[in-house]
Amino acid sequence: MLYLLYLNVMTYPRYTRLVNELPSTVPFVGPESQERDRKILFEARLGANENMFGPSPKALSALKKYSNEQWMYGDPTSFELRSALGEKHQISPDNIVVGEGIDGLLGYLVRLLVSEGDHVVTSDGAYPTFNYHVSGFGGHLHRVPYLDDREDIASLINRAQTVDAKLIYFANPDNPMGTYVSGNEIKRALEDLPEGCLFILDEAYSEFAPALSLPRLEITDKRVIRLRTFSKAYGMAGARVGYAMGEKNLIKSFEKIRNHFGMNRLAQRAALEALSDDNWLQEMIQKVENGRQRIYNIAAKNKLKFINSATNFVAIDCGQDGSFAKKVLAGLISQGIFVRMPFVCPQDRCIRISVGKKRDLDKFEKALPIALERASR
Amino acid sequence: MLYLLYLNVMTYPRYTRLVNELPSTVPFVGPESQERDRKILFEARLGANENMFGPSPKALSALKKYSNEQWMYGDPTSFELRSALGEKHQISPDNIVVGEGIDGLLGYLVRLLVSEGDHVVTSDGAYPTFNYHVSGFGGHLHRVPYLDDREDIASLINRAQTVDAKLIYFANPDNPMGTYVSGNEIKRALEDLPEGCLFILDEAYSEFAPALSLPRLEITDKRVIRLRTFSKAYGMAGARVGYAMGEKNLIKSFEKIRNHFGMNRLAQRAALEALSDDNWLQEMIQKVENGRQRIYNIAAKNKLKFINSATNFVAIDCGQDGSFAKKVLAGLISQGIFVRMPFVCPQDRCIRISVGKKRDLDKFEKALPIALERASR
Repeated sequence: MLYLLYLNVMTYPRYTRLVNELPSTVPFVGPESQERDRKILFEARLGANENMFGPSPKALSALKKYSNEQWMYGDPTSFELRSALGEKHQISPDNIVVGEGIDGLLGYLVRLLVSEGDHVVTSDGAYPTFNYHVSGFGGHLHRVPYLDDREDIASLINRAQTVDAKLIYFANPDNPMGTYVSGNEIKRALEDLPEGCLFILDEAYSEFAPALSLPRLEITDKRVIRLRTFSKAYGMAGARVGYAMGEKNLIKSFEKIRNHFGMNRLAQRAALEALSDDNWLQEMIQKVENGRQRIYNIAAKNKLKFINSATNFVAIDCGQDGSFAKKVLAGLISQGIFVRMPFVCPQDRCIRISVGKKRDLDKFEKALPIALERASR
Repeated sequence: MLYLLYLNVMTYPRYTRLVNELPSTVPFVGPESQERDRKILFEARLGANENMFGPSPKALSALKKYSNEQWMYGDPTSFELRSALGEKHQISPDNIVVGEGIDGLLGYLVRLLVSEGDHVVTSDGAYPTFNYHVSGFGGHLHRVPYLDDREDIASLINRAQTVDAKLIYFANPDNPMGTYVSGNEIKRALEDLPEGCLFILDEAYSEFAPALSLPRLEITDKRVIRLRTFSKAYGMAGARVGYAMGEKNLIKSFEKIRNHFGMNRLAQRAALEALSDDNWLQEMIQKVENGRQRIYNIAAKNKLKFINSATNFVAIDCGQDGSFAKKVLAGLISQGIFVRMPFVCPQDRCIRISVGKKRDLDKFEKALPIALERASR
C-alpha cells in the first residue's frame, strides 16, 4: 500500500491505479498505418468489413446538401434519427440511444456495469474492441471457445452462471467467422440467463443475415440490449453512427455518462437519409450476397474450404494451422491486398475477406494462388 | 453493505455503485430540444458559441470531395491531421492526440486520472461538461469563485495544494465570461503548482484572443495539457474534432482508453483542409472582432455594461441580479433568439451572446430592448 503510494507520487501525472496497469493497446491497426509502414497504398481494402458499395445516394447527397450546417453542433439527443429508428423498429425513441459507432456504445455500456473485478463473458476470438473496453474498466474477462466455428451461446450463458457475470457479449452474426445462430435458439438459451446478467446482442451484420437470425424479443425485456450500426449494410463506417435498443431505463442510463455532444451533425443527417432508402439497402444486401458467392468460388477454385457467411465477409479455411494462414495473409498484404484474420486457434486457420467490388475481388482472385503458393514453400 | 448488495440484486442490470449514484444529467440542453418544446424554430442561434461564419470553403469542399470515402473507417491514429497540427505548433505528432471534440478529450483525461474520491479543482461557474466528467468518474470537485469575472488562477492552484488535487481545469480565455489572463501570469502561477497536479489549459477560444494570452511552455512540460478545437475559430462544431497537446507519455496514455475508431473520416479531412487555410482564419478572427464590437454597441445603446471579450461571445451585464438576467434571457428566447447565460452568482447577472452574422445580430438588437422592458415590468 505504501509502496503503491510512493509509485504514484513519482509518476506524473498521477494516473489511476487501473490506468497504470493497462497496456497502450490498439484493438486494431488501421490500414492507413500499414500503408505508411509499407510506404505504398493498398490496391484493395478487404480487411475491415467495410462496405465498398458505399452509402445510399440519398445519404451522400445529404452530406453535400447539409455541409453548410457544419458550424452547428449536432442535436445531442439525436432526436430525429432516434424517431426514424423507432419507426423502423416499431419501438419508442426512448428505447434507443445513438452513439459513436458500436465501439463507442460498447465502451459506455461496459462503463455502466463493470467495476474492477466484475466478471464478463465473451467468446475466445470474438470482437477485440469489447475486450479492450472490459479491461479498460478493470473487468475480469472469461473466454468461452467457439463450437464448430459458431459462438457457443449455451456455454456462454453457462459460464456466466458459474462466474456470476454482469455481461455476456454475443455477436449474431458472428465476426470473424460470419456464422449465426437462429433467433429461436437465442430465445431458448436466454431462458437460462442468470439473473442480473445483461446479454449484449451485437447485430452489426444482421441486415446481411437471414431474417430467422433475429430473435423476437419484447423491447421491455431487461435481459438484452441490441446493437446496430450504419457502418456495415448502410455503408457509412466513416460516419461513426451506431445505436443500441433496449428497455427504457437501461437506455436512459447512458445519459449519465455518454459524451452528449459526441455525434457529428452531418453523420446524423446522412444516417437519417440512409434509413429512408430501403431500396438501396435491399440492393446492397443482394450485391453482398453475390460478392460472398464470388469469394466462395475463388476459395473453391483454390481447393480451399470456406465458412458459409451471413455477413459481408467470408472466412476462408486455408486448410492448415494458424501459422500457415498467417503466411497466406502476409502474401496477400505484400501484393497490396488489405485483409485480416481471426486471432485464436482453431479459427486462425482462416483468413477473413470482406466483400468488395468486382475490381477488388479480381485483385484478390489473382493474388490468392500466389500467396498460397508462397506460403506452401 | 448487505443492504447495498440487496439493492444491486434487485436492480437490473447491475450498474456499478458509482453509476447508481449518478443523476441522468445533460450538461447542456441543445437548441433543437428547445425548438421541439416551443414547437417553433429559433430565428437566431446565438447561444452555443458556434461560429456562424462557418468553416473555410476549403473544408467545405473537402466534405464534398471526399464524401465518397464515407464507406471507410477513418484512420484511427489521425496521422495526417496530427502531422499537420504538429507542423503548425512546431511539435511532434507524438505530442498530439485527436478526439471527439474537447468534450470527448476531457472525458478521457478525467478517466485517466480520477478514481472515486480523487480531488479536482475548477472555477465555480466554469465549463459544466468538465464537471460532468469528474462526477461521472467519482471525483470530488472543488469550486473556486471567479475574481472580477476572471478565473482566479492563483486561488485555483492554492486550492489544489490544500486538497491535494490531481487536476485543475482552467479555460483561457474563459467561458462564459470571455475574459483571459496573460500567458506570463499563467507561467508565474504554474511555479506554485503542487507536485502531481496536472493543469488543464482549455484554449478552445484562444484563436480569438490576443497572442499574449498564450503561455510559452515547453511541450516536454509534464505539468500542463492544452486543449484546442475546430469547433470555434474554425467553424466546425458539428464535426467534433478537438485535440490535446502535451508531453509524449501523457499523450500516449490516451491510447489505453480512447475510442480508437471514434473519429469521423470526413471530419478529419475537413479539419486538415481548414488548418491549411490561414487566410480564412485571419478573416474569421477579424469578423468575430467586428461582431464583438457590434454586441458591445448594442449593450451600450441599452445602457448595459458588458465584459470585454477575448472570444466569439460577449457577456452582457444586465445590471441586476441573476433572476433579472434570467427574465431577460426568457424574453429573448420567447422572441426566437437562442441564448444562454452563466449559471453562478455573480456571473449570472449576465447573458452570454455569441457573435453572429449581421442578420442574427440585427434580430438580437431588435429583441433586446423588448426583453429588457418585459423583465423590468
